[in-house]
Amino acid sequence: MQTRIVLVEPKYEGNIGSVARVMKNFGFTDLFLVNPPELGNDARIWASHASDVISCCKIFKSLDDALKGSNIVVGTTSKTGKEAVRTPIISPKELREKIEGKEGIVSILFGREDVGLYNRELARCDIVVRIPTSHEYPVMNVSHAVTIILYELRDVESKNLKIAGRNDIDLLLDHYRRLFDEISYPTHKKEKTLTMLRRIFGRAGLTEKEVRTLRGILRKTEWRINKK
Amino acid sequence: MQTRIVLVEPKYEGNIGSVARVMKNFGFTDLFLVNPPELGNDARIWASHASDVISCCKIFKSLDDALKGSNIVVGTTSKTGKEAVRTPIISPKELREKIEGKEGIVSILFGREDVGLYNRELARCDIVVRIPTSHEYPVMNVSHAVTIILYELRDVESKNLKIAGRNDIDLLLDHYRRLFDEISYPTHKKEKTLTMLRRIFGRAGLTEKEVRTLRGILRKTEWRINKK
Repeated sequence: MQTRIVLVEPKYEGNIGSVARVMKNFGFTDLFLVNPPELGNDARIWASHASDVISCCKIFKSLDDALKGSNIVVGTTSKTGKEAVRTPIISPKELREKIEGKEGIVSILFGREDVGLYNRELARCDIVVRIPTSHEYPVMNVSHAVTIILYELRDVESKNLKIAGRNDIDLLLDHYRRLFDEISYPTHKKEKTLTMLRRIFGRAGLTEKEVRTLRGILRKTEWRINKK
Repeated sequence: MQTRIVLVEPKYEGNIGSVARVMKNFGFTDLFLVNPPELGNDARIWASHASDVISCCKIFKSLDDALKGSNIVVGTTSKTGKEAVRTPIISPKELREKIEGKEGIVSILFGREDVGLYNRELARCDIVVRIPTSHEYPVMNVSHAVTIILYELRDVESKNLKIAGRNDIDLLLDHYRRLFDEISYPTHKKEKTLTMLRRIFGRAGLTEKEVRTLRGILRKTEWRINKK
């Protein structure tokens, strides 16, 4: 499993440097930044001996671009029971269990220092993780949140269960969307249900073969509907 | 178990604020500082909504004063196999296991940003912990190190196995020191052996009753020696 840390619109270079440092502490190197501030001295000072992680980081203008090629997208949040997060929220330890033994690219998203990830960003994550913090003050500094997640994932073993790529899942969901049209599924429920399906498939960690089988079922269903 | 975070001669207020924040994130409040810099705006900015932890922190001129009343003193280090650390170094998870179900005050020491804890400071710790970081870059930012330790200790349950106070252990070691004199134990080995004993007793998490029993053995031994 290849792990990418994706910081979504971080505001302070100090935090980016600090994230780079803890990545190197735990042996991770792939840092992806979506619309970061300009990276100058502060980022390097906080990165300390991990300025190579900063030098090699990749910068994107949109989250979509940053997520290309990912097999699993993991969102982090400090909130519970958000309307948009229609999914069981798992712990860092459970994330480890989900990832262990799989193969592919996992992108872990960390949101803005003030407001975190937007609901629409969380909605497109396959898995949502919450660090078990105090209810009195749940919001962690972003580099501390990265610290916990990477501590849990530091020695995850990779095996060879080829999990489905994000494209495969997208195609599967498009297929469902078409089916929804065919069966006149209520319009106002459509997007929420698709988000729910994405989550279910995300938590399940679908393999490529399973996606093919599910699409086969959809194809046969459509065929049957149109034959009537 | 009551947990105190003791920062030994931290240099940057930002780090102190950052430590305060993660303490509150995990529900801890007792912050002890040994010779910190003056605490101003920076500490409060980094503490964010945990400035109450900063306001209530206790400041000491010496480590000895900061450790008064502690039942267990835990040192943290990023190095392995230090000459002075003549003890198995345990992981944060093992620390949790040692502390779980015990009662008393545990003080966890974090060293200076550049050189960590001195060997003489580690030598007086009952337990030494190392966070399992990469060998390529093992030195963590102090607030990240605190993050990992408190994440592991966040929901440790306290029971009522009354563990020995530091004073009890000190008296026990003084007793050994007197015995060493009586038995002409090699002078150059004395301090190292006493450090080793402190570690063994620290790892074992002696109860008050066990200390009394051990001192009873020493008393009877002295008595027997002097009777000859």
